[in-house]
Amino acid sequence: MQLGMVGLGRMGNYMVQRLMRGGHECVVYDARPESVAELAGLGATGSASLAEFVSKLAHPRAIWLMLPAAIVDKVLASLVPLLENGDIVIDGGNSYYHDDIRRGADLITKGIHYVDVGTSGGVFGLERGYCLMIGGEKGIVEHLSPIFATLAPGVGKTEASPNRSPEAAAVSTAEQGYLHCGPHGAGHFVKMVHNGIEYGLMAAYAEGINILKHANIGAASHEADAETAPLAHPEHFQYDFNLQDVAEVWRRGSVITSWLLDLTADALHADPALAKYAGRVSDSGEGRWTIMAAIDESVPTPVLSAALYGRFSSRDNDEFANKVLSAMRAGFGGHVEKPAAKS
Amino acid sequence: MQLGMVGLGRMGNYMVQRLMRGGHECVVYDARPESVAELAGLGATGSASLAEFVSKLAHPRAIWLMLPAAIVDKVLASLVPLLENGDIVIDGGNSYYHDDIRRGADLITKGIHYVDVGTSGGVFGLERGYCLMIGGEKGIVEHLSPIFATLAPGVGKTEASPNRSPEAAAVSTAEQGYLHCGPHGAGHFVKMVHNGIEYGLMAAYAEGINILKHANIGAASHEADAETAPLAHPEHFQYDFNLQDVAEVWRRGSVITSWLLDLTADALHADPALAKYAGRVSDSGEGRWTIMAAIDESVPTPVLSAALYGRFSSRDNDEFANKVLSAMRAGFGGHVEKPAAKS
Amino acid sequence: MQLGMVGLGRMGNYMVQRLMRGGHECVVYDARPESVAELAGLGATGSASLAEFVSKLAHPRAIWLMLPAAIVDKVLASLVPLLENGDIVIDGGNSYYHDDIRRGADLITKGIHYVDVGTSGGVFGLERGYCLMIGGEKGIVEHLSPIFATLAPGVGKTEASPNRSPEAAAVSTAEQGYLHCGPHGAGHFVKMVHNGIEYGLMAAYAEGINILKHANIGAASHEADAETAPLAHPEHFQYDFNLQDVAEVWRRGSVITSWLLDLTADALHADPALAKYAGRVSDSGEGRWTIMAAIDESVPTPVLSAALYGRFSSRDNDEFANKVLSAMRAGFGGHVEKPAAKS
Amino acid sequence: MQLGMVGLGRMGNYMVQRLMRGGHECVVYDARPESVAELAGLGATGSASLAEFVSKLAHPRAIWLMLPAAIVDKVLASLVPLLENGDIVIDGGNSYYHDDIRRGADLITKGIHYVDVGTSGGVFGLERGYCLMIGGEKGIVEHLSPIFATLAPGVGKTEASPNRSPEAAAVSTAEQGYLHCGPHGAGHFVKMVHNGIEYGLMAAYAEGINILKHANIGAASHEADAETAPLAHPEHFQYDFNLQDVAEVWRRGSVITSWLLDLTADALHADPALAKYAGRVSDSGEGRWTIMAAIDESVPTPVLSAALYGRFSSRDNDEFANKVLSAMRAGFGGHVEKPAAKS
Repeated sequence: MQLGMVGLGRMGNYMVQRLMRGGHECVVYDARPESVAELAGLGATGSASLAEFVSKLAHPRAIWLMLPAAIVDKVLASLVPLLENGDIVIDGGNSYYHDDIRRGADLITKGIHYVDVGTSGGVFGLERGYCLMIGGEKGIVEHLSPIFATLAPGVGKTEASPNRSPEAAAVSTAEQGYLHCGPHGAGHFVKMVHNGIEYGLMAAYAEGINILKHANIGAASHEADAETAPLAHPEHFQYDFNLQDVAEVWRRGSVITSWLLDLTADALHADPALAKYAGRVSDSGEGRWTIMAAIDESVPTPVLSAALYGRFSSRDNDEFANKVLSAMRAGFGGHVEKPAAKS
Repeated sequence: MQLGMVGLGRMGNYMVQRLMRGGHECVVYDARPESVAELAGLGATGSASLAEFVSKLAHPRAIWLMLPAAIVDKVLASLVPLLENGDIVIDGGNSYYHDDIRRGADLITKGIHYVDVGTSGGVFGLERGYCLMIGGEKGIVEHLSPIFATLAPGVGKTEASPNRSPEAAAVSTAEQGYLHCGPHGAGHFVKMVHNGIEYGLMAAYAEGINILKHANIGAASHEADAETAPLAHPEHFQYDFNLQDVAEVWRRGSVITSWLLDLTADALHADPALAKYAGRVSDSGEGRWTIMAAIDESVPTPVLSAALYGRFSSRDNDEFANKVLSAMRAGFGGHVEKPAAKS
Repeated sequence: MQLGMVGLGRMGNYMVQRLMRGGHECVVYDARPESVAELAGLGATGSASLAEFVSKLAHPRAIWLMLPAAIVDKVLASLVPLLENGDIVIDGGNSYYHDDIRRGADLITKGIHYVDVGTSGGVFGLERGYCLMIGGEKGIVEHLSPIFATLAPGVGKTEASPNRSPEAAAVSTAEQGYLHCGPHGAGHFVKMVHNGIEYGLMAAYAEGINILKHANIGAASHEADAETAPLAHPEHFQYDFNLQDVAEVWRRGSVITSWLLDLTADALHADPALAKYAGRVSDSGEGRWTIMAAIDESVPTPVLSAALYGRFSSRDNDEFANKVLSAMRAGFGGHVEKPAAKS
Repeated sequence: MQLGMVGLGRMGNYMVQRLMRGGHECVVYDARPESVAELAGLGATGSASLAEFVSKLAHPRAIWLMLPAAIVDKVLASLVPLLENGDIVIDGGNSYYHDDIRRGADLITKGIHYVDVGTSGGVFGLERGYCLMIGGEKGIVEHLSPIFATLAPGVGKTEASPNRSPEAAAVSTAEQGYLHCGPHGAGHFVKMVHNGIEYGLMAAYAEGINILKHANIGAASHEADAETAPLAHPEHFQYDFNLQDVAEVWRRGSVITSWLLDLTADALHADPALAKYAGRVSDSGEGRWTIMAAIDESVPTPVLSAALYGRFSSRDNDEFANKVLSAMRAGFGGHVEKPAAKS
């Protein structure tokens, strides 16, 4: 079927390519003409303005936005006045689900249908397919199913769970890699939690690997002063682990096999010191929103929160708190900060 | 080659079966005669006592212990006097790596070689193979490589990491699913960290799924008193998610695909309410030791620790701390505890 | 000066009493006539309705609301139409500071001034005085200073910090125990963070005391199975601490002396087992909002968050997450949950 | 009575001074002659060697060690051969209680009594008195009570808890500020937990103050890209709090008053930017041991652990973990690290 795509960054570009490979017709728009041109060169119908873009789509239009969360409302303000009763807008980016609920309610008063789609898969999605978590009106989601089916990995790449009942399989598209999760916001809610989990998984591997990295601390000399915790048994920390081999062996038959472990092993193979990374870790919203939703629900999330806070600290946002601690220690114990040699 | 196995519980039993399928000769012993008989029925050489067991093994013996960590030393006390110079004892259970270092040093004074093997794979290992993390003397580990190669998943089940260099691949057995990690204790150290990571991964999924489970809290009525935090926007929490479908769709193309997610999805398919579980979660040592090692190394592990503490709390070990909190609240604010309806 | 008080619960009642002791004239209203009657008996001017209450206050009125956060907007909806240009409404409860910003902006369009006051001190405030954190227009806050000065503990109860400069002391009322913190919302923001800190402090004591409580775990027998982490050194855990004596000695000369410790010691003296508490710990909003504000600021708060989540778990809101963990353990290891004897 | 002091650093020096003020006779030794000379100038009996020190003490000797935990065993190895049956060695430093248990058992075989004393109070102890937590044989602790009574703050500085029973008060010295907590190790166990709590309290204040510090983040411009979480409501973060005034007002009548808050306020008065601190926070052993003890007991300590890990991260020990996270993000999403401008 025909789909319009607004936002041709890495994600939008690859999704258009995957849709065209699946036989769909794509009309595309981006504020950067070169992004439009690139996809036009691959067979998409390019457009130089939002108005031209809309005019090239047949009614009822299906328009997919693949944009940073912070500018979706701005683009909608320009786009919606160009649309007609019955058109469909799909937000496939990382919007806050609160915004989906608001937009869905607003747009339906104008006869426009809104669908929120949480999209996972990253840069591998072009080949692997995208995991799609979808919120919106049931009929509209069904209308768009050819699009979702093409973007998703599809049946067969992963075996169904052994306990999955035939009844469940009959009424759900989960095995095809896309799922209508519920009303407006449900797709981004599920994607938000997915990303919250992702933060936790990533931190679990990172912390563990960091323990392996420091397992030879007993080989170093250790200061004996009141400011340094003594290492009682240096003989227990004399290991020089080959991190890339450890990650590689864990990929086979262990309980912790995962796609994230695959990526970690590969990064360590490329450079065991990971020297090109400074260790300043961004977060892009979903991890935070996950914690906020959990707090509203009174659900404890110590692991997911710790993962988020580790990213904040990696960007030195704990600095003033640490100064306060040092000031207190100076206050009650006369403790002077030690210089920056690692302890 | 010939291997003796002591300890024929679920893990030991399956490992013997996998070894025999691979053409190895297994001599087996367990304090429970019926466990011995079961494997004898499958082709193993049974024995009725440790002495008989040792007598049936050719020198230099290779003896694998698959026992609860708490009884390894007791069994060694009986076993070692029966052994000869050059014999090999392998601890394939979940021993603390400190004990490996001590045992390795003790046994070598008697001419006995000690090898520690961290074994991951659980009840699926019989078919899937076991991920083996190995510590000990290089020559001894190489001598045992036919055993390890059979127990491990082997080359080919999982593609090598794209960035893995031919040089690395040439000198390491990681791609076969077993790895000599370093000297005594190195195997259990790596397995310990593996399990610490496992705790973190599991908790990340569990917390996320719990958020989905409570996503309809806005549909319930909410009390307005000074003891209850108000839910400002009940309209944001009106979702009834189908947890098994969500887990199933995440298994396809998402960033959080993993074997643990596969197991989770399957458990939810079997019963979305997980009614047969009370939620009292055991921990068996490695998770704790991981945290202790990290602390000795001055390495922060907020995520892995939170995962461990969640298990402690699941067994109500936070109860007195919570009583102290309620007592303080009564002290400064006259707050009275609310009864047990969930908030 | 004259002050109207709406909301005569524990806090409102005591504040009126303290104000009358300080020579102020109080007009009071509460939906429960008996609460009004009680304070009328102590010299306050009672009123039977909001309208009567407003009519008894001289223009420009100063009206203090001491209400659960969840009903402030409802009361304002009834109250504000009765007010005149120049009147002042003070919210002394535990409102979310977002609401203060909104209300302050709304009310000023009607000529009504809004002041938010975070009030700490609990049931001891009547005698000890209340710590007041204030947000609003500078001139309005100054106009109300006689009220704040009476409610606050006042100069002299606590010595000024040695490093406090005379210049700082000259321009700030902090030493009197009340402080104009900034514009609308600033008072409740500072109070919110105060409560967030309070949660962290409380949890720190509670966790520590719980460690002392379990310090005799080595005296109990310990199971040796694969589901139980072995206690390697039971001889290290043979202490039967007298918790009330420990808390009492800590109150003298230690680094951790505090008012919360005083309350804890007293509660332990009353009953070392704290048997009347079930350990279901409420939270009333500020702790959550603190975390949400920190997340918006990208500031890590692992300690304050852990304290909040401990309360959620104390109310069993981690139950489904724990069931998921047990289901995973059953899945990969065939682990069966142990019954409820404490481990 | 007579007391020998070995180790005349800040703590040992002040304790000798306080003891001499209380009328006790002090014999002193330190490897640094100038430290000995300083106290000799104040009336102590100096000694130039351990042998001379021991010779100047009357039998049965009472010898207090005030040394870094890491060198206590070394000093004991030199000291103990010089002692006689019935002599007493007191370790007043921050030893690990495991070492106390071992030393107490070792020394008693030589007729030497060992007492472990956890000492809190820091540099203020000279004037304020020290909170003393004591482990050892009951009769020996009673023999030393004149020393403990002088070092401790004494009755009267702090009122007894209202609920403290006369019976409890009659049999315990807790109100004098020192307490016999139990057998060998009990004193350092209680002090260890005290310090664990201290870490938690400190972190709670530090995190809260850091939230106040960043409360004006909405005034800064904010980037709108896929690597930056959007700040939905900058109008909620427009506060420029005067941190020293906030800390000062909290010291009066609030729930979070404490000695640590007094110190924090004073440090902020000295310099609100705390510019002389880099925020690299040491830890000296007890915080770690607290967590390890809790883990052995299966007691959850999320708050105390988070406080400890914050210190580890302040010293950049999370660096490799953060590189792993950035490497994963590059792997699945092509994310590139942002440069070091604070977010």
